[in-house]
Amino acid sequence: MTANTNRALVLKAYPAGAPGPEHFELVESPAPEPGPGEALVRSIYLTVDPYMRGRLRPGPSYAEPQRIGEVMVGEVAGEIVASRADGFAVGDFVTAGIGWQTHGVAAARDLRGLDPAEAPISTSLGVLGMPGLTAYFGVLEVLAPRAGDTLVVNAASGAVGGVVGQIGKIAGCRVVGIAGSDEKCAFVVEDLGFDAAINRRTAADMSAALRDACPDGVDCYFDNVGGPISDAAFENMAMGARVAICGQIAQYNDTEQAMGPRNLRHFLVKRATMRGLLVFDWRARYGEGLARLTRWVREGRVKYREDIVEGLENAPAAFAGLMEGRNFGKQLVKLGDDPTR
Amino acid sequence: MTANTNRALVLKAYPAGAPGPEHFELVESPAPEPGPGEALVRSIYLTVDPYMRGRLRPGPSYAEPQRIGEVMVGEVAGEIVASRADGFAVGDFVTAGIGWQTHGVAAARDLRGLDPAEAPISTSLGVLGMPGLTAYFGVLEVLAPRAGDTLVVNAASGAVGGVVGQIGKIAGCRVVGIAGSDEKCAFVVEDLGFDAAINRRTAADMSAALRDACPDGVDCYFDNVGGPISDAAFENMAMGARVAICGQIAQYNDTEQAMGPRNLRHFLVKRATMRGLLVFDWRARYGEGLARLTRWVREGRVKYREDIVEGLENAPAAFAGLMEGRNFGKQLVKLGDDPTR
Repeated sequence: MTANTNRALVLKAYPAGAPGPEHFELVESPAPEPGPGEALVRSIYLTVDPYMRGRLRPGPSYAEPQRIGEVMVGEVAGEIVASRADGFAVGDFVTAGIGWQTHGVAAARDLRGLDPAEAPISTSLGVLGMPGLTAYFGVLEVLAPRAGDTLVVNAASGAVGGVVGQIGKIAGCRVVGIAGSDEKCAFVVEDLGFDAAINRRTAADMSAALRDACPDGVDCYFDNVGGPISDAAFENMAMGARVAICGQIAQYNDTEQAMGPRNLRHFLVKRATMRGLLVFDWRARYGEGLARLTRWVREGRVKYREDIVEGLENAPAAFAGLMEGRNFGKQLVKLGDDPTR
Repeated sequence: MTANTNRALVLKAYPAGAPGPEHFELVESPAPEPGPGEALVRSIYLTVDPYMRGRLRPGPSYAEPQRIGEVMVGEVAGEIVASRADGFAVGDFVTAGIGWQTHGVAAARDLRGLDPAEAPISTSLGVLGMPGLTAYFGVLEVLAPRAGDTLVVNAASGAVGGVVGQIGKIAGCRVVGIAGSDEKCAFVVEDLGFDAAINRRTAADMSAALRDACPDGVDCYFDNVGGPISDAAFENMAMGARVAICGQIAQYNDTEQAMGPRNLRHFLVKRATMRGLLVFDWRARYGEGLARLTRWVREGRVKYREDIVEGLENAPAAFAGLMEGRNFGKQLVKLGDDPTR
């Protein structure tokens, strides 16, 4: 069964600074056999996400660190090629947290069945997966916007940011995106329906740019990035503003502690609230979130864009590019043939 | 009526850095006459509070800046010496926001009647006034501690901090105070009943000291100070921690933007919430807060300590000392005879 030779990327070393291909090693081995209650999954799409950078250090974060010499953690959308799991048959499409490899075994409880007739299976890793759910609960539960609020989101064309802004529009907000190129800014305004966008690479003064784009101040700030962009957002908060801290990608590759202005006084003056957000905390409500997101996608009210590179060997470069904003839309790596497209 | 000569401190200049006597000028004038609906108040105690530093700059904060050449803003506890206000008679004790002066006129709606039989009138500026209410709503509404939580408060022997910790004890918390001397630390533990205290001036490593004092992490952090103490508190947050930003006195005298580590990632990892707190937002519920605080003071469950200096001319130095933590307990300035003591 040469089709079931497994190719996997294992972590060779923790990166100091930016991760790159040199930190991973491609290894081949026979694909494992599923045990009782398990299925063997052939990966079709692999997701790379900013949170993975947090795993690539020995210290504790909200999850265990990735171990050296083990397959890099992560989720795939794929097809079952062997099954001893009740309710899962060969040919079924699923998501599975088998990591960066072409084949992997997962227990039934760790599989999520996908219906290709409902949505492309790749969306299970993006708009109809963890990033979309992060946006859904982050906006509706953490920011809790009122109609008429001004909502600002950064990394606005990304997998989370794009959905954040579109849910903000559904909730009746004025939505301003911050993104890393004119092309991305045009995309979030013209394709996703944001009210305005700011190019973070060309804005000479982010605080002034936000003041112009948000004349009544920022009521809701969804932060994927941190750093100077957040300084500018805090300076522009409206009374009673809410801040969701979803990511701080600006710092993830830092080798030294980044410094910035001590500006929590803005939270006092504006009686603002900041809350850290991790989607896992809403696990019990994923069904609700997926149902609404699926409906909104079908109705065309939530659009998405994917950035798909080919080949497992290109996953490290795709991940490294994601950390620098070189992707445009949800970053995926295609590992095998997609029979649904 | 020489008794009704008014002595007032007016602001001469905005301080750059620490405020001091050189920024104020003592002026004398005849005390004003009350108009219809007004009363003339003779000041007995004047309060100085950290928030006043925020007024001493031309830029906007949560209140209008103090104007140059005008009487310094603030509240006094005093006695009515002339009244054209219904419900207020000569000899009544009241609080009034007449500023740093020995006599001032206030409208009836800006007077709060005091009963010296219920509590010393000076407490209307401390434990039974704005600082006590700040602690009350800050703990119960912003931090919302659960029994068994660990609560950390800094400026722990101060007018707000001391009440914060004692309400934390009433609410069933383990309470750790951070204060500026061994004497203050002993006071909060032995007199106020805190579980532990850390001397911020002698602790070699605040983060390690907090880790030792809070083995289960910090569930509730009441911040009057900001700066490196907050960095250490954020590092020690327990899952789901709540932070109340009440003051940032460490920065109030800064002439340049203070810098610190970019550490909002802790809020993400710990799914923590931070909220800025201004007591005025609970104005409609002051009655509830004062009723409970009064009962707790009477029952001896909330104790307080006052640091009283004599003479209006010493108010600027008392204020300057407060900014540096030289006071020990609620800082008051006695401006006139207290017939109730």
